[in-house]
Amino acid sequence: MTEKVVPLTDLEIASKATMKAIWEIAEKAGIPEEAVEPYGRFKAKIDVSKLPRDSANGKVVLVTAISPTPAGEGKSTVTVGLADALSKLGKKTMIALREPSLGPVMGMKGGATGGGYAQVLPMEEINLHFNGDIHAITTANNALSALIDNHLHQGNALQIDPRRITWKRVLDMNDRALRNITIGLGGPTQGVPRQDGFDITVASEIMAIFCLAISLDDLKERISRIVIGYTYSKEAVTVSDLGVQGALALLLKEAFKPNLVQTIEGTPALIHGGPFANIAHGCNSLIATNTARSLADIVVTEAGFGSDLGAEKFMNIKARQGGFAPNAVVLVATVRALKMHGGVPKGKLAGENVEAVMNGMENLAKHIETILAFGVKPVVALNRFITDSPAELEAIMEWCKTNKVRIALTDVWEHGGEGGVALAQEVLSLLNEPNNFAPLYRVEQSVSDKVGSIVQKVYGGSGVVFTDQALKNLQEIEKNGWDMLPICMAKTQYSFSDNPKLIGRPEGFAITVREIIPKLGAGFLVCLTGDIMTMPGLPKTPAALNMDIDSEGNAIGLM
Amino acid sequence: MTEKVVPLTDLEIASKATMKAIWEIAEKAGIPEEAVEPYGRFKAKIDVSKLPRDSANGKVVLVTAISPTPAGEGKSTVTVGLADALSKLGKKTMIALREPSLGPVMGMKGGATGGGYAQVLPMEEINLHFNGDIHAITTANNALSALIDNHLHQGNALQIDPRRITWKRVLDMNDRALRNITIGLGGPTQGVPRQDGFDITVASEIMAIFCLAISLDDLKERISRIVIGYTYSKEAVTVSDLGVQGALALLLKEAFKPNLVQTIEGTPALIHGGPFANIAHGCNSLIATNTARSLADIVVTEAGFGSDLGAEKFMNIKARQGGFAPNAVVLVATVRALKMHGGVPKGKLAGENVEAVMNGMENLAKHIETILAFGVKPVVALNRFITDSPAELEAIMEWCKTNKVRIALTDVWEHGGEGGVALAQEVLSLLNEPNNFAPLYRVEQSVSDKVGSIVQKVYGGSGVVFTDQALKNLQEIEKNGWDMLPICMAKTQYSFSDNPKLIGRPEGFAITVREIIPKLGAGFLVCLTGDIMTMPGLPKTPAALNMDIDSEGNAIGLM
Repeated sequence: MTEKVVPLTDLEIASKATMKAIWEIAEKAGIPEEAVEPYGRFKAKIDVSKLPRDSANGKVVLVTAISPTPAGEGKSTVTVGLADALSKLGKKTMIALREPSLGPVMGMKGGATGGGYAQVLPMEEINLHFNGDIHAITTANNALSALIDNHLHQGNALQIDPRRITWKRVLDMNDRALRNITIGLGGPTQGVPRQDGFDITVASEIMAIFCLAISLDDLKERISRIVIGYTYSKEAVTVSDLGVQGALALLLKEAFKPNLVQTIEGTPALIHGGPFANIAHGCNSLIATNTARSLADIVVTEAGFGSDLGAEKFMNIKARQGGFAPNAVVLVATVRALKMHGGVPKGKLAGENVEAVMNGMENLAKHIETILAFGVKPVVALNRFITDSPAELEAIMEWCKTNKVRIALTDVWEHGGEGGVALAQEVLSLLNEPNNFAPLYRVEQSVSDKVGSIVQKVYGGSGVVFTDQALKNLQEIEKNGWDMLPICMAKTQYSFSDNPKLIGRPEGFAITVREIIPKLGAGFLVCLTGDIMTMPGLPKTPAALNMDIDSEGNAIGLM
Repeated sequence: MTEKVVPLTDLEIASKATMKAIWEIAEKAGIPEEAVEPYGRFKAKIDVSKLPRDSANGKVVLVTAISPTPAGEGKSTVTVGLADALSKLGKKTMIALREPSLGPVMGMKGGATGGGYAQVLPMEEINLHFNGDIHAITTANNALSALIDNHLHQGNALQIDPRRITWKRVLDMNDRALRNITIGLGGPTQGVPRQDGFDITVASEIMAIFCLAISLDDLKERISRIVIGYTYSKEAVTVSDLGVQGALALLLKEAFKPNLVQTIEGTPALIHGGPFANIAHGCNSLIATNTARSLADIVVTEAGFGSDLGAEKFMNIKARQGGFAPNAVVLVATVRALKMHGGVPKGKLAGENVEAVMNGMENLAKHIETILAFGVKPVVALNRFITDSPAELEAIMEWCKTNKVRIALTDVWEHGGEGGVALAQEVLSLLNEPNNFAPLYRVEQSVSDKVGSIVQKVYGGSGVVFTDQALKNLQEIEKNGWDMLPICMAKTQYSFSDNPKLIGRPEGFAITVREIIPKLGAGFLVCLTGDIMTMPGLPKTPAALNMDIDSEGNAIGLM
């Protein structure tokens, strides 16, 4: 008789873990009791105004990854495991992560709390509503929409052109049927008819503002600068013209406090703000990062998807504005994902295939180049799976040795912090080296120069094509003097190019910018490339179909 | 020199109040520590599975009111003040209230936490997002919508007719432009085009289910019964056909725990669930009421708007299903509101006008009759304003004496519980009397008989007109065997009739039922009457325009 060992799911591991009271975690993090506002027993909001006013000077370790594949890379898992390993080595460490969006949770990707023994807890609650921040952002966004449409309906004193309203409604949901809608139908008592559409909340400007504001005053000031559309005479209309920045900031008051939780091993983690990295800037809130930097010596944070998306924006947008440098970058890769970049389809990943892995290394190589282009040194975290063969792992290690790239094997899914010690040691040695971080472009450059530098130095593309629409947007942006802002690229995560099918390391491609949207509150210009959508759709079999709850309130089927 | 005393606003009084730690309030309420999940320092969710399994047998005092006018009646204020007065008299008392919707908060009415020295705290947080329950309900509702539209898009295996989808999206917002919309535009990759519309969350069936379910299993079971629309062959399609009841119930898991807060005087209050009383059934959750009844000897609760709306549904829907009787009913009236029912417009309320007050008494008289029709005895709470003249007050007292109606003056806005002692004593004496509560109709009666009995016995109308649309709905309902359910009337709050202009005590009117919507999860049939809308609009000058937040995070302009 043979026994088959069924491995525990992430949810099962999370459910079995014993959490410490959040007070204890706060104390460990050096957060005074009066700053802690518990949300249940294992989550808290932190009132940063009650923290000791130390300067924020913890070092920042940014975790990014190769271009994602359906095989999965485990970036959040490595982020958590690395922090646990650093804690284990006696370093005062804190994690800063994004909050999961319900879109992917109910849709395809599942949650965003790490996996195995490298998770943040309570996994269920973080993945479902958490402390309500994203809902508050949705509400502030849609309150603005309702106030705009009410303004049109009640006489339109500002002479807003209903055809030129750029502010869209949002839901934290994958809901393609809401991408293009018409509203205000039904006659004169039912509002003014116009085209509209919903984005997912995590792509909204309010989310971006939330993640870049450094204080409540800054939050309100940024909200007041949002351009919601244009008048019949094509003048920009802002939130301050409507006079509702106070109400919108008020709706974000509690949400704006960073959320404290813990890893399975008890490392404190701040999880706050959650913009997607493909259609938004992809990093947790600056206020959480700053708070973590004021409390810990090392802050481990992540930016979404590959280094071409989250990390690029982390460096060109967030670090530039925050005035800090990422002191080290961890680049997560897996054998399976590299095989896919090497041309193997998902169904055929089983079995050793060193050649495919080596072919896929070109994707990793490009990400390494990208990070170096920012003047920061990377270390590759080779996130081990039980199916990886020694020869495959060895080939990657050897490649890194030959190319003088730091690399460490990690095994944090199975072993938690213990499985991340080798990586932690590499990171610590990197932190002792000088780095020459600088954003890739100056904001004073022209928009096309800025986009061009991202396309060439980050994506490895050959050029940029602006559609007529984008050129019209650009004209408007220059006319209004908004061109001196950083760029937030919206691009598929699957490829360096704007075509999701070009995996590996495509070359000689041009990026098509089809629309440029000024986000003056966030303080950047969004460039929509290729077919990228700001409202995802659900897959044929949504994750929701496997979810359930038992009579005692335990979650089933959360990933 | 004369000094002008500017009275404090509700927000100022709330901000100056000293709250007790929520642990202390829980202890006072007899809630064991392990059942308390703090949300900040002054709010908590209660895990009812960890409460002692005593039977729920606290007596229930229902607070209702005369037909509302723009003058305001102060129903929540009296509810809070009465409970504080009962506490002061040594009675173990708990409050059960609805959660405020952001629609009115940002729109016109303001918050719903009482006023003056009779408030529940923390006022700001309860009025803004509270513990996120309504957002969770919005999310569950809209996840279902997204799953329905995704089903259409991915091949429509169930053959759902897009023209016959009755499930609507929701937002907790007053947003008239979303009443009638078209979605799924933009071509074959953007969903299936169809008509849709948004209701306000507090009118949704998920909210009704949330407020009537007695356990998580019941919650899930009710969700599975929701009819979302019909197939091309006109068969009903339910949530269980889609197989997503588990995911939707999971989204409501934390929200389903009642929220504990306190009054300014420290009386424990459960605030949970918040359906509007005009377009929904208007009472807080049954689980909160049952929890309060298991902890306290007296539970003071309210139902929305006048007795024709919230109280009627409290008795015919909630109490019927909950298997309890309201042991006493408090009917709130004010001199100013009675004057308006007596024909005085809002601008001319100043100055004594006994005749107008007496003319307006017909409205109060009808509400008294309505309550008596349920076999329950009322006591009138005459909620005193500083502008009321002694003669006006005396005339009302005298009328009640003549008509053998219990009445007590209350002054809780200014004096808190102390101002409600006279009312509390009347209530206590009522609680010692037998009552003969019975719902007005049996569910086995025909739909038109059930509606007819509400119209005649509660509204004082002469009959019911069903439009062709309503008759078609009725046919469908009878064909499917759904007619044995209670009725949830959707009617203007301003009049006993379906015409908001007919204030006072209209007679000889018929009620027009324009649509009947089966809500099998909630377990009732919604009858839309007159022009009632399930998505309100914002007024010309929304309350949001006066809201703000200062640098320290203090709210400004919340009402």
